[in-house]
Amino acid sequence: MRPLLLPLAALSLAAAAPAPAPLSPTEIVAAAPASAWRAIDPATLLVLDLAQGGRAVIALAPGFAPAHVANIVALVRAGWFDGNAIVRVQDNYVVQWGGAPAPGRMRPKSLVAHPPAEYERPRAGLALRALPGRDVYAAQTGFVGGFPVASDGRTAWLAHCYAMVGVGRDMPPDTGDGSELYAVIGQAPRHLDRNIALVGRVIDGMERLAALPRGGAALGFYASPAENSPILRARLASDMPPAERPHYEEMDVASPSFATYLAAKTNRRDAFFVRPANALDLCAAPVPTRPAGAGSPH
Amino acid sequence: MRPLLLPLAALSLAAAAPAPAPLSPTEIVAAAPASAWRAIDPATLLVLDLAQGGRAVIALAPGFAPAHVANIVALVRAGWFDGNAIVRVQDNYVVQWGGAPAPGRMRPKSLVAHPPAEYERPRAGLALRALPGRDVYAAQTGFVGGFPVASDGRTAWLAHCYAMVGVGRDMPPDTGDGSELYAVIGQAPRHLDRNIALVGRVIDGMERLAALPRGGAALGFYASPAENSPILRARLASDMPPAERPHYEEMDVASPSFATYLAAKTNRRDAFFVRPANALDLCAAPVPTRPAGAGSPH
Repeated sequence: MRPLLLPLAALSLAAAAPAPAPLSPTEIVAAAPASAWRAIDPATLLVLDLAQGGRAVIALAPGFAPAHVANIVALVRAGWFDGNAIVRVQDNYVVQWGGAPAPGRMRPKSLVAHPPAEYERPRAGLALRALPGRDVYAAQTGFVGGFPVASDGRTAWLAHCYAMVGVGRDMPPDTGDGSELYAVIGQAPRHLDRNIALVGRVIDGMERLAALPRGGAALGFYASPAENSPILRARLASDMPPAERPHYEEMDVASPSFATYLAAKTNRRDAFFVRPANALDLCAAPVPTRPAGAGSPH
Repeated sequence: MRPLLLPLAALSLAAAAPAPAPLSPTEIVAAAPASAWRAIDPATLLVLDLAQGGRAVIALAPGFAPAHVANIVALVRAGWFDGNAIVRVQDNYVVQWGGAPAPGRMRPKSLVAHPPAEYERPRAGLALRALPGRDVYAAQTGFVGGFPVASDGRTAWLAHCYAMVGVGRDMPPDTGDGSELYAVIGQAPRHLDRNIALVGRVIDGMERLAALPRGGAALGFYASPAENSPILRARLASDMPPAERPHYEEMDVASPSFATYLAAKTNRRDAFFVRPANALDLCAAPVPTRPAGAGSPH
């Protein structure tokens, strides 16, 4: 395993190391037993087929934004996102898609035009795997399922970490109807927390969204439709034919493997590091995910 | 001014707002008087001409890593980076370039093969514009010139925020000779602070580096040289003919405008926001920079 930032020439040095170093977070994830993983419900997986090739797969969070997620499911089933496009890529901020639909596509009648402001929910009832240590923005942070969560003790909310997906909206009191979505592609814009509805996290294909050309118009919008990056099709995994349906797993945040992962992220002791940080930002510890069946037998 | 994440259709809403909202950070920067800006020394500006088109401009930080910066200057003047390439793009982590040089290019004789570990420096003597509020990783944070800085009170170090540039290295006790550099393109990897020498910040062209295709080999390296993204030429701005030389300014972190900028970043009160954060991460407040002469007369 090559350490972080290691130039190509260093392989021989690593091979000559006298004793095995503690595992890196990546190695911990690779070594985690099957019991540390759990399947993600395919009814919560939104699969975007991208014109550039490949997919972006989003795990939705109905436990935090049920009305917005229900709208998104209705929009997906009505074909709203099919032939739609990514229209905005603002560096170190967001990729955004949706908006004006392809010809003949309309909002479904079942859509709630003005969903409630699902910016936070009661803390009670959440299995929050707390992250020890301080946070800049909230009294408490941690993980619920595969999602980064912040809390003031009374309520809890999804945090704007890299790859989180939210619902574009107009000015208050509008909350967005789910027809326009964005994903975070830079430093966590945590100032957006509780100002906008987060609805999920990109668990596969972020490298496709984040590498799109930045838009040249204001706020990173593409200056002309010719620059848009089309979305061929959007489906829920559970609506796909079984033979085509992708399956994903996330690390169980209650598992010993996840505890080991967090500890290693907090204090890197693998060979490259000379000074462990003894600290870990919520957004620097994404919950590991993988295609189901990706694990090797341990 | 269109608010954040505003769909295109909302312009009419914004125009109908009853009273002008407090300024956004972007508006504060645009309105800052000339006295809030100071020129960046062209001898500290590293200009990379990219084969993809355009440039990446890096402001070097000799006050934090003098030996590494001196090495980089010597390498630039020896042509080390001319015809070299970006060889690694790891999503939500780093872009890396340098490494094997073009044919006929060699390390200059003046290069210090093993510079000292310039991972931190004394806190004393630094004009640190402190950022109030807590940080996940350090007792104190703030800004020195255009750079994000963390400190434990005794020493201070550059922080691994988005766009910061560091020196790739092998295992300890090697510190890297400056021939291979990286820039941060995702969530701040603050665990690298004090484990590696940071030498500057990309102040123009980050959107070019960050949008490069991610590498498919381990750690985001490109799998074949054909995928590399070439660097045509690297020069110090001060070595360029005056007619070609770019000039940049950064906001003076001691200026009232910067104080207003930080306050607005801490508590967004422009029209879009319903709940100001009352918090600000060091890496969420990059020091504004611009091409010299970009300001309008205020």
